[in-house]
Amino acid sequence: MKLSKDWVVGFVDGEGCFHVGINANREMSIGYQVLPEFTVVQHQRDEVLLYAIKEFFECGVVRRNHGDRLSFRVRSIADLQNVIVPFFVSNPLRSGKIDDFEKFKIVIGLMASGKHLSKDGLEEIRAVSRQMNRGRLR
Amino acid sequence: MKLSKDWVVGFVDGEGCFHVGINANREMSIGYQVLPEFTVVQHQRDEVLLYAIKEFFECGVVRRNHGDRLSFRVRSIADLQNVIVPFFVSNPLRSGKIDDFEKFKIVIGLMASGKHLSKDGLEEIRAVSRQMNRGRLR
Repeated sequence: MKLSKDWVVGFVDGEGCFHVGINANREMSIGYQVLPEFTVVQHQRDEVLLYAIKEFFECGVVRRNHGDRLSFRVRSIADLQNVIVPFFVSNPLRSGKIDDFEKFKIVIGLMASGKHLSKDGLEEIRAVSRQMNRGRLR
Repeated sequence: MKLSKDWVVGFVDGEGCFHVGINANREMSIGYQVLPEFTVVQHQRDEVLLYAIKEFFECGVVRRNHGDRLSFRVRSIADLQNVIVPFFVSNPLRSGKIDDFEKFKIVIGLMASGKHLSKDGLEEIRAVSRQMNRGRLR
């Protein structure tokens, strides 16, 4: 199935999620790991569609989420930085989700310059990511 | 805000709903009223987007749904028949939601030829609409 750019933007405006997790992790010298993630979750009957999105972006994976839900997700910093962020810069979201994306883009930029490895940088990332995904009740 | 056709298809693949209600109604000679409806529900922060969709289709209304949710909806049989159905025939949905749309299209066709006003026709509509919106867990 071949998807157009505009279709992908519309679908992500509806179903996409930009999320930044900050998890305690003893293996990191700073004690925390920053885990940015772009996901699209669907009922398993639309598995084909998630694979079409994976093919469209030429990165990411499709995984079982929980129960009968599957998700397409991109966690690789390189792919987020080189593929996902540039795509949504060139093809802007039309919904309020663009606010989450703008913050996500800032976090990816901070990570690209290694900020997630210093205490101050981590606090900066934490401050930005705290402003994401607010007021979204699903 | 100007929306493209492909964006609208993508967004409806994610957030749209084709529904046929069949409600008891004493004012109808047959005792039931068939109420087909196309809706897109969003958090109120995306009110502008729902109005952009209304402008795109040049029909329908934006109403408060419940709580902080708003919906764009089209209930007019004429608008469903002349605007909504032809649009999604020319611009096919890519998700499994197309199955609901195909059944919705059948119901609108049956209503256009007055089937909802006879007992046999109503049963035909009921049989088709029973197959809609199955396996959708939100």
